[in-house]
Amino acid sequence: IMYGQCDHPPDSSSSCNQCPIKHCFLFIFADLLPAKNGEEPTMQFLLEFVEILTNYIRKTFDRSTKVLDFHHPHQLLEGMEGFNLELSDQPESLEQILVDCRDTLKYGVRTGHPRFFNQLSTGLDIVGLAGEWLTSTANTNMFTYEIAPVFVLMEQLTLKKMREIIGWPVGEGDGIFSPGGAISNMYSVMIARYKFFPEVKTKGMAAAPRLVLFTSEHSHYSIKKTSAALGFGTENLILLNTDERGRVIPADLEAKVIEAKQKGYVPMFVNATAGTTVYGAFDPINEIADICEKYNMWLHVDGAWGGGLLMSRKHRHKLNGVERANSVTWNPHKMMGVPLQCSAILVRERGLLQGCNSMCAGYLFQPDKQYDVTYDTGDKAIQCGRHVDIFKFWLMWKAKGTVGFEQHIDKCLDLSAYLYNKIKNREGFEMVFNGEPQHTNVCFWYIPLSLRGLSDGEERRERLHKVAPKIKAMMMESGTTMVGYQPQGDKVNFFRMVISNPAATRSDIDFLVEEIERLGHDL
Amino acid sequence: IMYGQCDHPPDSSSSCNQCPIKHCFLFIFADLLPAKNGEEPTMQFLLEFVEILTNYIRKTFDRSTKVLDFHHPHQLLEGMEGFNLELSDQPESLEQILVDCRDTLKYGVRTGHPRFFNQLSTGLDIVGLAGEWLTSTANTNMFTYEIAPVFVLMEQLTLKKMREIIGWPVGEGDGIFSPGGAISNMYSVMIARYKFFPEVKTKGMAAAPRLVLFTSEHSHYSIKKTSAALGFGTENLILLNTDERGRVIPADLEAKVIEAKQKGYVPMFVNATAGTTVYGAFDPINEIADICEKYNMWLHVDGAWGGGLLMSRKHRHKLNGVERANSVTWNPHKMMGVPLQCSAILVRERGLLQGCNSMCAGYLFQPDKQYDVTYDTGDKAIQCGRHVDIFKFWLMWKAKGTVGFEQHIDKCLDLSAYLYNKIKNREGFEMVFNGEPQHTNVCFWYIPLSLRGLSDGEERRERLHKVAPKIKAMMMESGTTMVGYQPQGDKVNFFRMVISNPAATRSDIDFLVEEIERLGHDL
Repeated sequence: IMYGQCDHPPDSSSSCNQCPIKHCFLFIFADLLPAKNGEEPTMQFLLEFVEILTNYIRKTFDRSTKVLDFHHPHQLLEGMEGFNLELSDQPESLEQILVDCRDTLKYGVRTGHPRFFNQLSTGLDIVGLAGEWLTSTANTNMFTYEIAPVFVLMEQLTLKKMREIIGWPVGEGDGIFSPGGAISNMYSVMIARYKFFPEVKTKGMAAAPRLVLFTSEHSHYSIKKTSAALGFGTENLILLNTDERGRVIPADLEAKVIEAKQKGYVPMFVNATAGTTVYGAFDPINEIADICEKYNMWLHVDGAWGGGLLMSRKHRHKLNGVERANSVTWNPHKMMGVPLQCSAILVRERGLLQGCNSMCAGYLFQPDKQYDVTYDTGDKAIQCGRHVDIFKFWLMWKAKGTVGFEQHIDKCLDLSAYLYNKIKNREGFEMVFNGEPQHTNVCFWYIPLSLRGLSDGEERRERLHKVAPKIKAMMMESGTTMVGYQPQGDKVNFFRMVISNPAATRSDIDFLVEEIERLGHDL
Repeated sequence: IMYGQCDHPPDSSSSCNQCPIKHCFLFIFADLLPAKNGEEPTMQFLLEFVEILTNYIRKTFDRSTKVLDFHHPHQLLEGMEGFNLELSDQPESLEQILVDCRDTLKYGVRTGHPRFFNQLSTGLDIVGLAGEWLTSTANTNMFTYEIAPVFVLMEQLTLKKMREIIGWPVGEGDGIFSPGGAISNMYSVMIARYKFFPEVKTKGMAAAPRLVLFTSEHSHYSIKKTSAALGFGTENLILLNTDERGRVIPADLEAKVIEAKQKGYVPMFVNATAGTTVYGAFDPINEIADICEKYNMWLHVDGAWGGGLLMSRKHRHKLNGVERANSVTWNPHKMMGVPLQCSAILVRERGLLQGCNSMCAGYLFQPDKQYDVTYDTGDKAIQCGRHVDIFKFWLMWKAKGTVGFEQHIDKCLDLSAYLYNKIKNREGFEMVFNGEPQHTNVCFWYIPLSLRGLSDGEERRERLHKVAPKIKAMMMESGTTMVGYQPQGDKVNFFRMVISNPAATRSDIDFLVEEIERLGHDL
C-alpha cells in the first residue's frame, strides 16, 4: 500500500476511516513544529518515521534478507522506481519524504547484517543506536560545559576510565574524542611536535630541524596523510620493515633511527600499530618503547582497531607496553561496536593538548563565567564545534558493563579462530600468513579449481589477482554477504575477513566460506 | 511514576496488568537483538525510548519550560537524585538505561528552545532530526560508494548544487563534507599550499619559501589554529585591520602584502570572512579578490556562518564576489538549521582535493572494483572513516525546497532587524557599532541604572565589563533564556545576540530584552 493515496479531506485522526488505506497521511496537510498546532503532526510524523526505522532494524538482523541490493551509480542517478536524488526549489510533501527515507534505506548497505564483514566497523548495537538518536535530539556541541554539561562530564569520566585501562597511573593524563582515527593520529603528531619543538606553533616548521617520523609499512595511511598535512612531508615519514606476520622489526627501527641521525635529521615520533588494518598485527610495543626512550622519541600507539582488546583479560597482553606510550588512538566505533563516529586520542602528559591547540578565543571561552571553566574543552581541540560522540559510548558502557565489552571481544576473536581453523587446511584455500591471527583479521586466497594445478609463477599470480575482485563483484550482485579484499606489498589480491559484528555466529562464518566456494569454484 | 518498580513476573505484554504502574518494564528480563528472540524486547525498548525523545521534543518547543536546569560540575559529578555518571564493570538494567537517558536530557540544555540564542547553531528541525536518526540506523561510512552508495551520490549532487549557488560555472569544482568549519578551513589552507607548492606534500615545509597567510582580526580562530597545525606558524598569519563594523579594510591587506613581499616572504592565502562570529560582518569579497588576483594569492571565503545567506535573493548580495573565491567554507549546521555536524568545503578547481590528500591506500580503494571507483571519496579526505553528514541536509532540502531555506533566512534576518530597532534608542541599551547588522548578530551593552550617570572612563569600563557575565550567570541560574557575551578588541564584555532558531518569534525577542532588564536593572 502506498502512503497518501487517498484524497479524502483531513480529519482529526491519523488514519483514514473513509477508505481501506491504512496509515493514510492526513497530517501531511499540517505543518511540523515549530508551526502553530504543529505538535500533533510532528508526533505522528515521527512515529511513522520510527516505524520505517524499526522495520529496517528488524530486517537487518534477519538472515533471509540481503545485505545489499546493489546498483551502479548511473542507475541510482537515473532514478530507481521514482527515487529521485535531485534537489529542487519547491518542497516535497511529508509523505514523499517518508518514501524517500524508505528508498534511501532500500538502496543502502545493511552494515549491521550478521553477514556483513566488509569493514572494521560493523554491527548495529541497539543501545548505541538509541544513544545516537538521543544525541541528535539534544543537538548540542562539545566545546563548552555551558551548552553540554552532562556530555562534557561523561567525556571526562570515560576518557579517564580508558586511561586507567591503558595503565597510566590513576588514569592521569588527557584526551579528547575526535571525528575519527585519522584525526586522532593527526593529534598525536601535533602534540609530539609541540612537546619537542613548541616554537613551531608560532614560527612554523622553519623553527625546527629536519624532523623524521617512523611507522610500519603495514600501518594505516593516515600517518602518511598527517605527515603531508602538518608540513613534515611524506619523504620524512620512514617506513619500517615487518616480519611475515606484519609486525615491525624493532632492529629495523633502531637502524633507521641511527641512519637518520647520521644524516643530521632529528627522529621525533614513532607510531606503533596495535592491530594493523589488513593483517591485524600488533607491533611489539615494549621493544619499540625501549628504542623510543633511548633516542628520546615520542611513542604513539595507533590502537584504532586493536585498542578494544584492552577490554579483554584474555587478549590485552597483545598490547603489552601500551602504558609506556605517550599517546594512544583508540576507536570504540571499531572493535567495540559503538556506532560511527567514536574515536579517542589519549595523551599521557596533561597540558600538552591545551598548550598545542589553545588560541584563547575570547568570544567562546570567557574566563569570567560563573562555573569552573577548566571543564570547557574547546581550546584543546583543533575543531571549534565538535559533535557529541561520547553519549552512545557511555550509554553502551552502562548497559554492557566492562564485562559486556570483554565478552563481545572474546566472542569475535573466538569466531576468527574458528574461521582460521576451518580454512587453514581446506582445499581451495590458502593462508596469506601462517599461524592463528592476532586480531580478528583472517587473510586468505581462494583458489578456483582452474588454478589449483598451476605452479607458482607470474601467470598464476596474474590470474589469482583477479579472483577476489570477481568473487566480490558477484557477492555484491547477489547481495548475500560482503567481505573486503586488497593486495599488500608483493601479495596479489586476497580476502581480508574481519569480525567485529556482534550478530555474527559460526553459521555465518560457514555461510561465507561456502558462498566464496559457490561463487568462485568455476572461475 | 518510576519505571520498573513492580516485581511481578514477566508476561507477554509490555505493560503490567497486575498493578497500577503504567509502563512496567517486564521486557527488561529479555535481551535485545541480536539475541535470540530479541526482536520483541528490542521493539519495545525502542518505542519506550522514542517516547522519552518525543516528550523532550514536545517540551523543547514549549515556552513554559526552561531552557536549562543549571548545575555546577561538582553537583552533577556527585550524582543528582541518583543520576550516576560513573561507569562500572557490571551492566545496568534496561530500565536504568532509560532513566539515565531521561536524566541526561533533564540536565542538558534545550538548544531547540525558542529562547535559546547562545550559539550560531540553534533550533531543532524535525525533518533534519529524522534524517539523523536514519543516518545512525544506517550506520555507515562515506569513504566508498561500496558501502554508502546512496549517501555518496547525495553528497555529490548537493555539493554541485551548492557550487551552482556560489556561482561557479555549471557548478563545476569539487568539495567534501567535513566534521566542522574549523576542519573545512584547514582544508582550504592545505589545498592552497598544494596548488602553489605541491612539493610540500612530499618534502615538507622546508621545500617552500616563508609563506604568509592573511585574515581579519575579527575572523574565526580556526584560521590561527590551522596556521599552527599545518606548520606555517601563527606569526606568519597576518591579521588585517577592520572598519568599525568589523569588515576588512582592503587597503590594509594590500599594504601588508607589499610589506611581506619586501621582507622576502611569499603571500599565499587570504581568508575573507562572510559573517564574522561576533559582529556578523561580511568582508568586501570583490575588493579582496582584486588584490588576490593582482598578487597571485589563494582566496578563501569562510562562510561557515554567513554562507547560508546565499540561499536568500534578498541577502545574498552581501557575499558579492564569492564566485571569485578559490574555496568556500559553508556550514549548513549554522544558519540553515541542519543538525550538527554539517559543514562543507567547496573548491573551484577540480582535482586539487584529490591531489593534495590522496595516498592511494590499496586496501581501501581498489581500482579493480566492479563499479566506477571515481565515486569513492575517501582519498580526497584527510579522514579515513567519515561520518554521513549529508543525509539530514539532503532530506531537509527535499522537505523545504530551496525556497524554504530562503524563507527561514529572511525570517531570521527580519527578527534581528526587529531587535536592532527595538533597542537602538532604548534606555539602558548601547549598541557596539552603529547601523543595521549585516547578519543576525546584534551586539550591545546593557547599562544598569547605577552606571547610567557615569562618564566614559576606566571605572565605567571596569564595571561595565562585569555586567554581561553577571546577567548571563543569573540567566542560566533562572534558566529562562541564553545569549552569549564576550569582549572584542578594546571593547569590554557585551552581549552578542544571534538568531538562527526557526522557533524564535518577536515575542521571544521581546522576552529576551525584558529579561535582561529584569536581571540587570539593579546591578
